[in-house]
Amino acid sequence: MSVKRKAPTLNDVARQAGVSTATVSRCLNFPDQVTAKTRETVMSAVRKLAYSPNFGARVMAVNRTNTIGAIIPTMENAIFARGLQAFQEELRRHGYTLLVASSSYRADIEEEQIRSMVSRGADGLLLIGHERDPAIYRFLETQDVPALVAWSHDCTKSLPSIGFDNRKSMRALAEKVIEMGHRRMAVISAAMKTNDRASLRVHGIRDAMNSAGLDPAELPIIETTYSIDAGAQAFDQLLAAPVPPTAVICGNDVLAVGAIKQARALGLDVPGDVSVTGFDDIELATIVEPALTTVHVPHRDMGTRSASMLIGLVEKKCIGEAIELEADVRLRGSLAPPRA
Amino acid sequence: MSVKRKAPTLNDVARQAGVSTATVSRCLNFPDQVTAKTRETVMSAVRKLAYSPNFGARVMAVNRTNTIGAIIPTMENAIFARGLQAFQEELRRHGYTLLVASSSYRADIEEEQIRSMVSRGADGLLLIGHERDPAIYRFLETQDVPALVAWSHDCTKSLPSIGFDNRKSMRALAEKVIEMGHRRMAVISAAMKTNDRASLRVHGIRDAMNSAGLDPAELPIIETTYSIDAGAQAFDQLLAAPVPPTAVICGNDVLAVGAIKQARALGLDVPGDVSVTGFDDIELATIVEPALTTVHVPHRDMGTRSASMLIGLVEKKCIGEAIELEADVRLRGSLAPPRA
Repeated sequence: MSVKRKAPTLNDVARQAGVSTATVSRCLNFPDQVTAKTRETVMSAVRKLAYSPNFGARVMAVNRTNTIGAIIPTMENAIFARGLQAFQEELRRHGYTLLVASSSYRADIEEEQIRSMVSRGADGLLLIGHERDPAIYRFLETQDVPALVAWSHDCTKSLPSIGFDNRKSMRALAEKVIEMGHRRMAVISAAMKTNDRASLRVHGIRDAMNSAGLDPAELPIIETTYSIDAGAQAFDQLLAAPVPPTAVICGNDVLAVGAIKQARALGLDVPGDVSVTGFDDIELATIVEPALTTVHVPHRDMGTRSASMLIGLVEKKCIGEAIELEADVRLRGSLAPPRA
Repeated sequence: MSVKRKAPTLNDVARQAGVSTATVSRCLNFPDQVTAKTRETVMSAVRKLAYSPNFGARVMAVNRTNTIGAIIPTMENAIFARGLQAFQEELRRHGYTLLVASSSYRADIEEEQIRSMVSRGADGLLLIGHERDPAIYRFLETQDVPALVAWSHDCTKSLPSIGFDNRKSMRALAEKVIEMGHRRMAVISAAMKTNDRASLRVHGIRDAMNSAGLDPAELPIIETTYSIDAGAQAFDQLLAAPVPPTAVICGNDVLAVGAIKQARALGLDVPGDVSVTGFDDIELATIVEPALTTVHVPHRDMGTRSASMLIGLVEKKCIGEAIELEADVRLRGSLAPPRA
């Protein structure tokens, strides 16, 4: 149903039911406070006119639903949880409700969810990363629904964004690894083709190798899904190589925790036998032992500022821009120089 | 907007724009494939009729939106993440889209979100726990939106539910603690007044004490919020007592991880100096060292079965019932007998 159609009003329902608007309102919102007979009369008028409570009047007035949609790749592992929580808190401060959908990192599901959110009358959308079919952007444009990209900064892309430079910050981390003396590194990453954050992070590692005179072509990379078990399996595979790596750089903290878990299972000491690094700095990063050297993503700041900008776009009070936040390296126990 | 109003059809738009329905459909769904001029003509007809793509036709046919809403207390800490992921996968298998809202454990926000989901045309709702204003249940009834409660089993309540017995399973865990020889226990819980899972778990601990001849009135309880930091603070406070507890039973794994973190900070050995237990068995429980003794909640099974039952209710193919799943104790390193 479009939100722009002329909707029946509370008045229409009251007239139809032969009661006051206050009674209609009470019946809809606090059905316990009216008699069963009144409830029946009012609800039959509501059904006849197909009146939708609360919603119609507001939409008529401002042509908005005060609902923002966010489509994130996963609800598991808390990767997006903290940022989304801050996003929701800021939306709420401005009277907006957040509805979230999770695409399981699948482009086809994400597209369905974008269309569903728009059908459901979302005023604006938060999306993660820039990588998607250009037709979706045209769709959002024709539907006049503003969208904002978070978790990825790229000022060359058409959608406004609030994020950090995945490539630059992973490069900074890889430089620390190389500075410590590591030469045999390996990478556990999410699928790079459909995930721009993942591919940018791997590019960052290659940048660091290039500038240190190492050959990025020799870097072993395993692509897998973001889960602790997948990280553990990939680590196992990397360490089985004839000349195993002395440092395993992981695309995120969840994979790194899996790597550390598997190191423990193999009887290897982290960082004595092998160093492991993550990306995100979610709570898991400081719970695991040793604590993870990782890239700290400004989750809450990103969430809050994304909400402000998206509201500005919805209310046509600002023009979207590409804002870059800092994501800095946090050195913790999981990284140390390799054994001599 | 109600989903039950007569909606303009694709045909109406095509007639208004003077094009074929295929062109309207292409324009809405793949705007890149039509000329700018056609797009303009079609979109102006869409706006004039306030047609909403994809949605109207389906709603007309089956009077449903194929959207299910879930309102969970928090997206942080992954407490509900795994169950919700399974819930979504099962919904998707049946052609339903999931929209999620998070209430931050606040009854007023939850109520707003329930009303918003219903306004947005949700076919059914998944709610967590039974504790809420009865007026909300009347509201859902008058709106004819079926709801299902998960994470809590209670066959005396009016809403159908799929969950586990919070009281019984926490009692089983507390019995293990007592069997190991602990007499001085203490509890870190979420606020019991507004969270039925939290209060039932504390009741379970008292049940175990009663049956072991211990006085539940002497059980120190700190109520706090579900976060690692809150767990750490509460632990600190409990251990500062003149006669500190030998076992700290936590209302969930997140609080327990906070307790273990704080024990480490205080230089205390877990379980040598003090035992700590959790509830939920989320991934964190086996990442922390020592691994948590906890109650294993059947997250995925609960999510999948909740989806099946809710779809059955929406499609009027089943009657809601109260289904109890098993939640069993997992003994791990964080629990041991107290020092002699």
